[in-house]
Amino acid sequence: MSQLLDTINYPEDLRSLEESQLPELAAELRAFLLESLSETGGHLGANLGTVELTLALHYAFSTPRDRLVWDVGHQAYVHKLLTGRRGAFGTIRQAGGLSGFPKRKESPYDTFGVGHASTSISAALGMAQAAAEQGEDRAVTAIIGDGAMTAGMAFEALNHAGHLNANLLVILNDNEMSISPNVGALSKRFSRLIAGRWYNRMRDNADRALARIPPARDFAKRAEEHFKGLITPGTLFEELGFNYIGPVDGHNLEELLPILTNLRGMDGPRLLHVVTRKGKGYEPAENEPTKYHGVTPFDPVTGAPRKSGGGAQAYTKVFGDALCEVAAADARVTGITPAMREGSGLVEFEQQFPERFFDVGIAEQHALTFAAGQACEGLRPVVAIYSTFLQRAYDQLIHDIAIQNLPVVFAIDRAGIVGPDGPTHGGNFDLSFLRPIPNMTIMTPANELDLRNMLATGLALDGPSALRYPKDKAVGLAMSGPPEPLEVGKAEVVREGNGDQALLVFGPFMGAALEAAEATDATVVNMRFVKPLDTALLAELAVSHSHLVTVEENALAGGAGEAVQAFIGTLDAEVEVRCLGLPDAFVPQGERGALLTEYGLDARGMTACLQELAQPRQVARECSQK
Amino acid sequence: MSQLLDTINYPEDLRSLEESQLPELAAELRAFLLESLSETGGHLGANLGTVELTLALHYAFSTPRDRLVWDVGHQAYVHKLLTGRRGAFGTIRQAGGLSGFPKRKESPYDTFGVGHASTSISAALGMAQAAAEQGEDRAVTAIIGDGAMTAGMAFEALNHAGHLNANLLVILNDNEMSISPNVGALSKRFSRLIAGRWYNRMRDNADRALARIPPARDFAKRAEEHFKGLITPGTLFEELGFNYIGPVDGHNLEELLPILTNLRGMDGPRLLHVVTRKGKGYEPAENEPTKYHGVTPFDPVTGAPRKSGGGAQAYTKVFGDALCEVAAADARVTGITPAMREGSGLVEFEQQFPERFFDVGIAEQHALTFAAGQACEGLRPVVAIYSTFLQRAYDQLIHDIAIQNLPVVFAIDRAGIVGPDGPTHGGNFDLSFLRPIPNMTIMTPANELDLRNMLATGLALDGPSALRYPKDKAVGLAMSGPPEPLEVGKAEVVREGNGDQALLVFGPFMGAALEAAEATDATVVNMRFVKPLDTALLAELAVSHSHLVTVEENALAGGAGEAVQAFIGTLDAEVEVRCLGLPDAFVPQGERGALLTEYGLDARGMTACLQELAQPRQVARECSQK
Repeated sequence: MSQLLDTINYPEDLRSLEESQLPELAAELRAFLLESLSETGGHLGANLGTVELTLALHYAFSTPRDRLVWDVGHQAYVHKLLTGRRGAFGTIRQAGGLSGFPKRKESPYDTFGVGHASTSISAALGMAQAAAEQGEDRAVTAIIGDGAMTAGMAFEALNHAGHLNANLLVILNDNEMSISPNVGALSKRFSRLIAGRWYNRMRDNADRALARIPPARDFAKRAEEHFKGLITPGTLFEELGFNYIGPVDGHNLEELLPILTNLRGMDGPRLLHVVTRKGKGYEPAENEPTKYHGVTPFDPVTGAPRKSGGGAQAYTKVFGDALCEVAAADARVTGITPAMREGSGLVEFEQQFPERFFDVGIAEQHALTFAAGQACEGLRPVVAIYSTFLQRAYDQLIHDIAIQNLPVVFAIDRAGIVGPDGPTHGGNFDLSFLRPIPNMTIMTPANELDLRNMLATGLALDGPSALRYPKDKAVGLAMSGPPEPLEVGKAEVVREGNGDQALLVFGPFMGAALEAAEATDATVVNMRFVKPLDTALLAELAVSHSHLVTVEENALAGGAGEAVQAFIGTLDAEVEVRCLGLPDAFVPQGERGALLTEYGLDARGMTACLQELAQPRQVARECSQK
Repeated sequence: MSQLLDTINYPEDLRSLEESQLPELAAELRAFLLESLSETGGHLGANLGTVELTLALHYAFSTPRDRLVWDVGHQAYVHKLLTGRRGAFGTIRQAGGLSGFPKRKESPYDTFGVGHASTSISAALGMAQAAAEQGEDRAVTAIIGDGAMTAGMAFEALNHAGHLNANLLVILNDNEMSISPNVGALSKRFSRLIAGRWYNRMRDNADRALARIPPARDFAKRAEEHFKGLITPGTLFEELGFNYIGPVDGHNLEELLPILTNLRGMDGPRLLHVVTRKGKGYEPAENEPTKYHGVTPFDPVTGAPRKSGGGAQAYTKVFGDALCEVAAADARVTGITPAMREGSGLVEFEQQFPERFFDVGIAEQHALTFAAGQACEGLRPVVAIYSTFLQRAYDQLIHDIAIQNLPVVFAIDRAGIVGPDGPTHGGNFDLSFLRPIPNMTIMTPANELDLRNMLATGLALDGPSALRYPKDKAVGLAMSGPPEPLEVGKAEVVREGNGDQALLVFGPFMGAALEAAEATDATVVNMRFVKPLDTALLAELAVSHSHLVTVEENALAGGAGEAVQAFIGTLDAEVEVRCLGLPDAFVPQGERGALLTEYGLDARGMTACLQELAQPRQVARECSQK
């Protein structure tokens, strides 16, 4: 079945094929993707949609000397298959395996590591500018989806590229917009014309001819732009200084190849608008693109998932349900997401409260200040956002929300270890970057009941607050009654031990902590609040215990443990503080449970630490801090 | 001279005037601004440019019920003068005085606190959406400059507003673009037409008439847009779903008032393009708008500053000169700034190395990822950025630079207390938000020699690094020889004391520390590196001293002091760590020196702490941690 594909290890093999062989290779690539991803899971739809585009790019360009920068990168699987990584493809997104995104360390063909949306044009522009400075004649191409184009960062980069008149090709991979046949037909012919060298020569000559009479040139240019505007949707890009070409059919190699070859030879900022279909060639994915965006292992014939979830609800779901409950009781509550409706558990909320639901697109900065504006007028916005994406709006959190002490609640999902997405999506830093911000209340639910009550707590506050929870299942506790506000800054002693040690737990580690506490009869506390800390309880514990061990799923630097340590340092107490948490390194991809074990954030790790601390002092000092 | 102005305390007073009286009032406002700001300093040019626009807004709208959101806000002085704050205006930007920006706590007319650019459309959209939900018929208007419009955040907000079809007016205050007389004349007539109610009724009727035949409507709409495009520069905004009106002369009240009145009655997203002149009405400021953007006290007749700088060079200047030196020796070095060429000291660098200088506009996110792209190709970009603006690009720092361990140097200016700009511009958090990021090297120069050498250190590293310095003068040390790399993670013992205490200094506090050390014969260390810490030296000091006192100009939460405390906690040592730094509160506007004194970050504060610690233990425990 993979007769052609088996002969292609690198793009030079690809470039030795006849153009007429490429459709067959595309079919083999689709079959390979389907078979492989039905086993491993991964981003299916986007990759089925970019098969021909990827083939055309590597065929028309001299990669890796010519640079390809994939935006987000979950559509770059075919790129990986064509650049020496077909054999390892079964390991994708697994511990020690291939990354689900382009990654510089993985291959010289991966020119820029990605994961978050909308970075590609900026990075490619930096590369293009470097090439200009180094006198290198290399093509630099950013490939970006229409969704990622809504982020302000992409606009900033387009604007700068136009200003610099940089030698940069941006490919807009448009898999949302439906193009009516007429417009498509017209523009198809037009795109071929405009991308041809003769057209550009002609335009350059005309420019030169008109250069001496500026008003005439201005009018001619404007008229040309607007003539083009009448038959193409590219006016916005033209306004930013780009030469717009398209739309073209991204599944038609006969159309793509000559255009890309022509574009390789052109100068200045160019934007090629390519229309593709998510899931192309696999009917279940074409029909339900959202469902097949990212998949768990499934049956390739029926499309049915191989294993179902089962067990406790995910924290994401607990949050989504709780938000519906509090919104039903309080008309001021709104729900805001930057393009993560499904991932943040807001599907149900949108259905129940469509007029209070705001998906702002990939626009984290705007999401937060939009929430701030709502809060100014008396609404109670809840921003549902992944920890890693909150990094995108850090200034807005400080400048627009915290300084004004506005009541915005942050429901921070994917806090801590994220699993197969790896370091680009890790949520390891939020406790550290939130702690120094004045006016913030920071909460770490230990279970689903905490999560529900902390949402109510945040909504009852007159300033900003955050609750953070991992990408994982909750404990499975029975939930009854509506969410109720907790007392702010109040921890809960879950186990009164008679030993010298206390485990101070920030987050969903109560089961492991209680198990670990057995051996040394340690006290276990559900700390609940990182800020404000329960300093009264800490002062008591500091007197009654010789060792306090903090547990958190956050970088140790600047985290909850350091907050405890800093407070204890102000007391006249002999107690020693140990901190368990994530190391000073980016957490690699892998299964969350396995990684928690590696970092000592499970029952065994906590037990080991407590037992070492229970030894005479000299030995205890050696208790390793991971 | 202020006959009219003396009668205007609030907008209702203004609205009782005849339209014909407004030009006289505008002249009085200009005279007031000039006289007042020549005494106090402040943002002169922008405010002279918005006199008529501000008058027209408060005259045409029912403020504060109708919301005005000023972007950045340094052009809102006239707004302050017209809303009950004329009497207090002499205190602007001073400790305890009026803020230089709109501030919610200051006045109900200040609907949104600002300072950073490009937040206004997001906030106004949030307010407009809240009004829609609450059934309130209030106008919401964002006033934004053309510079702020380049930030991605503004684009995100425009895009979302168009999508929501929100009732929002955006006023683009354009003081850069020069409009040729012809185009201006044409568009002037056109703007009046388009803003008239009859036009919109007509368009609505036409829309309804064509609604049944979509292709015809689409073509008509497109043709209309492009017809307008031929004579107005608003196509970009129209593409985003805005009704574009303009450009209009922002100093012509007869033109502004009817348009604003008409716009008040229109629905949907509207953008009014107003052309103004920075410094309007004051010749020195019209001729040199950059010089008169923000001024220190000056002679209003000649424009000459009242006092000159004198003394040591500012850290900003030291950095700018050092960058020129290292760039002369290394062709890989580039300099990148997000619209802060003057403020970051890059004027000289641009002159010497124009092809290696990149002002990307107000586009912090893009600035960093653009630098990452350059670094991928072997360049050595130096991003010169204020601490407060680096918050805008936190995710890019983590995701695009640190994860890939790319050699980008951050020259972080305005770190710590910023003075008259106040909390919106405070640089209090960078040590806290940088510390948890793996691969980062973080440096705190104690003086100008350190700064120069740390720049060289950063450029010699294979990963990202940051050096941070305050908005202040350096020490005044003689500089000779080129910048030289320091040993990474190595502190310098500046004073070997015989007492029990050591002052660990992170940043420019060496003079104060040495003075404070006298009384108790304390050791003084220039720590230099926050990350990696000089743990070898700390381990020695922990044995030889009973108290370590850390000094930093950063929030205590997550700062350098906590890093020291965390390391000391891993040792078997009896030493106690005290941390001096900024409190868990936003630092108010005021003079940097006075604020440092308030927070105990001067010789007296350090002396007091050391002396208290030198007391017997029980007393020492009470040494207050500010």
